[in-house]
Amino acid sequence: MKEDRQFAPACPLPSESGDTIQLAHGGGGRMMTRLLDEVIRPAFGDAELDRRHDGALLALDGPTAFTTDSYVVQPLFFPGGDIGSLAVNGTVNDLAMCGARPICLSVGLILEEGLPLATLRRILASMRSAADACRLRLVTGDTKVVDRGKGDGVFINTAGIGRVVARAPIGPQSVHPGDAIILSGDIGRHGIAVMAAREGLGFETPIESDCAPLVEPALALVEGGIPVHCLRDLTRGGLASAMVEIAESSGLAIELDEKKIPVRADIAAACELLGLDPLHVANEGRFAAFVPADDAGLALSLLRRHPVTQEAAVIGQVKADNAGRVSCSGPLGVARAVDMLSGEQLPRIC
Amino acid sequence: MKEDRQFAPACPLPSESGDTIQLAHGGGGRMMTRLLDEVIRPAFGDAELDRRHDGALLALDGPTAFTTDSYVVQPLFFPGGDIGSLAVNGTVNDLAMCGARPICLSVGLILEEGLPLATLRRILASMRSAADACRLRLVTGDTKVVDRGKGDGVFINTAGIGRVVARAPIGPQSVHPGDAIILSGDIGRHGIAVMAAREGLGFETPIESDCAPLVEPALALVEGGIPVHCLRDLTRGGLASAMVEIAESSGLAIELDEKKIPVRADIAAACELLGLDPLHVANEGRFAAFVPADDAGLALSLLRRHPVTQEAAVIGQVKADNAGRVSCSGPLGVARAVDMLSGEQLPRIC
Repeated sequence: MKEDRQFAPACPLPSESGDTIQLAHGGGGRMMTRLLDEVIRPAFGDAELDRRHDGALLALDGPTAFTTDSYVVQPLFFPGGDIGSLAVNGTVNDLAMCGARPICLSVGLILEEGLPLATLRRILASMRSAADACRLRLVTGDTKVVDRGKGDGVFINTAGIGRVVARAPIGPQSVHPGDAIILSGDIGRHGIAVMAAREGLGFETPIESDCAPLVEPALALVEGGIPVHCLRDLTRGGLASAMVEIAESSGLAIELDEKKIPVRADIAAACELLGLDPLHVANEGRFAAFVPADDAGLALSLLRRHPVTQEAAVIGQVKADNAGRVSCSGPLGVARAVDMLSGEQLPRIC
Repeated sequence: MKEDRQFAPACPLPSESGDTIQLAHGGGGRMMTRLLDEVIRPAFGDAELDRRHDGALLALDGPTAFTTDSYVVQPLFFPGGDIGSLAVNGTVNDLAMCGARPICLSVGLILEEGLPLATLRRILASMRSAADACRLRLVTGDTKVVDRGKGDGVFINTAGIGRVVARAPIGPQSVHPGDAIILSGDIGRHGIAVMAAREGLGFETPIESDCAPLVEPALALVEGGIPVHCLRDLTRGGLASAMVEIAESSGLAIELDEKKIPVRADIAAACELLGLDPLHVANEGRFAAFVPADDAGLALSLLRRHPVTQEAAVIGQVKADNAGRVSCSGPLGVARAVDMLSGEQLPRIC
């Protein structure tokens, strides 16, 4: 940006224009250039972005994973995270679930007219921090502005590219009868944290989201020689939806043991109060791994070395009969059918 | 989807629920699964999507381009295109401007509660058709639903991966003094078409957007042996913003010759009526190429073989003095300074 350009027209800096996003910040003109040059590119600080071209250039080699997610969570900030950290960790985790190490992300921002610039800066800093924690780059991006009342502050899309580390395909189709199902930690915290923040529910101790990157523990399994059959993070729809999806895609049955599924006492209490089943509540830092039963012990010991998966436990197994069904044995040993929710428990959780 | 699951709860199909998108279509449960299984995946018909895993697996090799754009155009449908074709062609064109042949796209949908399902189907079909025209795959995606009044029908993000064909770096930093600047065709149609559709302006003959994929003509230059220095599509901010960005990024000056810039008579008349400068109006199927002056003749002949670039013309040149500035000689030979607009001419053009 050449500040001494003789015929540059008077153009308000973001900080001179009420400190909010205006439609002109998405218009392709001087105000957009300033937003990009002075707020967005410096927040991410990547050489590829600084080339100011239409895309990033990467040197990729071999099997690659590619994924995308948009993030529309409300509120934008919640205990344990915000839409920025979520937008990085969520896509990072989808790559990890493909057995891939994240290399870089793209960032598509849809900003609503009137968004405080301070809010945007805080979200961008959170994205940068989450990306740095995973040693990945934010290499290309796009910013659009929609009129007031046509968005909701900020929506973020990230798409991610990762190098596949796993040698055999990881996915529902690789699940076998007899596989042990490992859950990486306690469930239900993200959904309850977001719901509490949105509805202003006051718990004695604030409940924090479990939002976290899962690359290291997930790849520890792969790199530790475990023939991982499937990995799945337990986001929208929770553990229940993930299990039903995998049972249906693999054409196998899943049996869970409820007493082995860790749910913190405060989460269980909140779920009871709100009439929710923890199995359906969204997580943003939890995953399930399907591994041969003989490898389950080694898998647990590998996972327990990482703080985020210290409480990993075998919670069930895969069966050949009752294809496509998921059941869960309760504390008295009686099995109940587990299904996805039909409708909506809590919208805009991610 | 197993329709005979004994304990599947009653779950309204999209077509049974008023034919509109509901919040539950984004909830991670049965309704979302049905939307994905019955509407979205079949529309795209890609084997990677049908794996129902967290990401796509690709075999990539060598230099790769990666780009993203979100699309928030209003109205969703306009003469010559719609948000779906725009979301494919726009990202395809960003890859082409990197000298890359598109391989695949991701698709992130943000749907507003109440969106007619028929509208979604029409947009998805348009995306598929645009992708097929470029022989590229829609390999991974995500769907979110936001509450009524927090979105605007449909927002789409696409991220694209392409194989870099160019041997030398293409970008503003490669522009040299003396380079000829080639414009691929007449300018201003997309912006005027969208504005006319939005404002209900009736022109004698409807003006159609120039929305089109630019891969073939752009790569014809690269593959035809032209040492292309820079390529830039002329979207938000139009020809003027693109030229100013490149002048500023390269630290060089750009001189344009107004009488060589093709503007259709109806577009010129509409611009005069609306008080717009065609140089600032957005295009979605036009680009500028910076090539050594000696190669300009060959470049023009290569471009003119493609219907979308039949009217390609040399419209200016790069100079070493007056770094960062763009000027345009008018019909009487008097040069005026060209700058980006400060504010917003027409929001949500793409």
